Amino acid sequence: MTEHTRLPELRVLGVPEIPEVASGDDLAQLIVAAVRRIGLAIEEGDVFVVTHKIVSKAEGRLVPLGEVEPSPLAVRWSAAYGKDARLIELALRTSKRVLRMDRGVLIAETPHGFVCANAGVDSSNIADGAAALLPDDPDESARRLCISLREAFGQSVAVIISDTFGRPWREGQVNVAVGVAGLRPIMDYRGRLDAHGHRLQTTAIAIADELASAAELVMGKTSAIPVALIKGARYEQGDGSARELVRSIDQDLFR
Amino acid sequence: MTEHTRLPELRVLGVPEIPEVASGDDLAQLIVAAVRRIGLAIEEGDVFVVTHKIVSKAEGRLVPLGEVEPSPLAVRWSAAYGKDARLIELALRTSKRVLRMDRGVLIAETPHGFVCANAGVDSSNIADGAAALLPDDPDESARRLCISLREAFGQSVAVIISDTFGRPWREGQVNVAVGVAGLRPIMDYRGRLDAHGHRLQTTAIAIADELASAAELVMGKTSAIPVALIKGARYEQGDGSARELVRSIDQDLFR
Repeated sequence: MTEHTRLPELRVLGVPEIPEVASGDDLAQLIVAAVRRIGLAIEEGDVFVVTHKIVSKAEGRLVPLGEVEPSPLAVRWSAAYGKDARLIELALRTSKRVLRMDRGVLIAETPHGFVCANAGVDSSNIADGAAALLPDDPDESARRLCISLREAFGQSVAVIISDTFGRPWREGQVNVAVGVAGLRPIMDYRGRLDAHGHRLQTTAIAIADELASAAELVMGKTSAIPVALIKGARYEQGDGSARELVRSIDQDLFR
Repeated sequence: MTEHTRLPELRVLGVPEIPEVASGDDLAQLIVAAVRRIGLAIEEGDVFVVTHKIVSKAEGRLVPLGEVEPSPLAVRWSAAYGKDARLIELALRTSKRVLRMDRGVLIAETPHGFVCANAGVDSSNIADGAAALLPDDPDESARRLCISLREAFGQSVAVIISDTFGRPWREGQVNVAVGVAGLRPIMDYRGRLDAHGHRLQTTAIAIADELASAAELVMGKTSAIPVALIKGARYEQGDGSARELVRSIDQDLFR
């Protein structure tokens, strides 16, 4: 295969062999060790996408469900739809605002402003009888990881912390960014010229979400690959925050 | 760099040098020629992501705005928000249902069931004075492309036709699939075991949307790369349709 050197190319690599993460673990160290073990070269501009689940585990954000006393609302609603009342109780406690609670689906706003099922509370890929909350401040988690990874590799990398969210109108879930460090999460094309020389009016691409989605394609849900490395992504370096991806309520026609 | 052979890897390659597409053009032939020109090897399972814009152009779905007589509603509303009344008129004519028409944003359902801004009507990357409608049947467009590309390359490839949609609750737009052929658009993990041996309850990943998003990262909005080739994607081959990505109204809490 002979390729032009200027062929735009993105590579998304799964980083396997990261051990089960426990509260207090140094996540950056675990990632660095896994990257070195498989002999991956880290380059300027590489993006690490890390599933929030292992961040939550490292930060002690697992809650034993046995300690959760469900409210009458959680008990009633969960019974009607065959849900675990303790999980629903945790979701309600975590919520800043409930958007919909209907047909077995609880859509709520997290303290960070993310709108998602069960306010991000989730019991998959966790030991029995516990649920994971989102990190308290996923941007800060990303920032710390980013600093450590930059130090370890000596390269200006970026970090995205991802979660899997459903969407209105469309079936299926996709990975999105809940924490960002080292990159601008939105690529704003407004005012730039398109291929026909017209000024683009409305295009602002949520590249942090697209990078998170691309990472999901190598992570999968059952394969225990909680970290992906993306090479060749075009993005603007800089201080970025996943909060920029949250539409403010006064701009939101669906909240 | 020494890598384990089992390292999961996705490659997303931009396919440049596709000429400006005109009504009646054989799009498959243009893509095949571009792929051969740059010497890309096509393999079993490769996914072509094609922006709907060139499909619409090839299918003659451009409308000269000069021929559009805006209704009083389109005139009034466009004037209030500085929009082109002819574009809004086209969007209203194309809509099956208007969900919101507020603060300069028109969110509508297309005849295919997609919910998006301006019912998918769009004037970027098009010659002056025209707007592109979505393909009449993007799944059928994908199916025809898929058959031609499979014949030309002798490999079982899949095709996704993409568009750029906004989302509620989150800022920025992302690429999604509006047409699908040769792959199952949703990877359903329900009932499978996670890394802890628990049965996953609710996870169904919209991998066609994630593949479309990954492709956008090499296409960009200003770089005139309307086709991406994705290698190494794990998906189920088979008859698939982007209609499977449309949540039915009775399952949708936000329509």
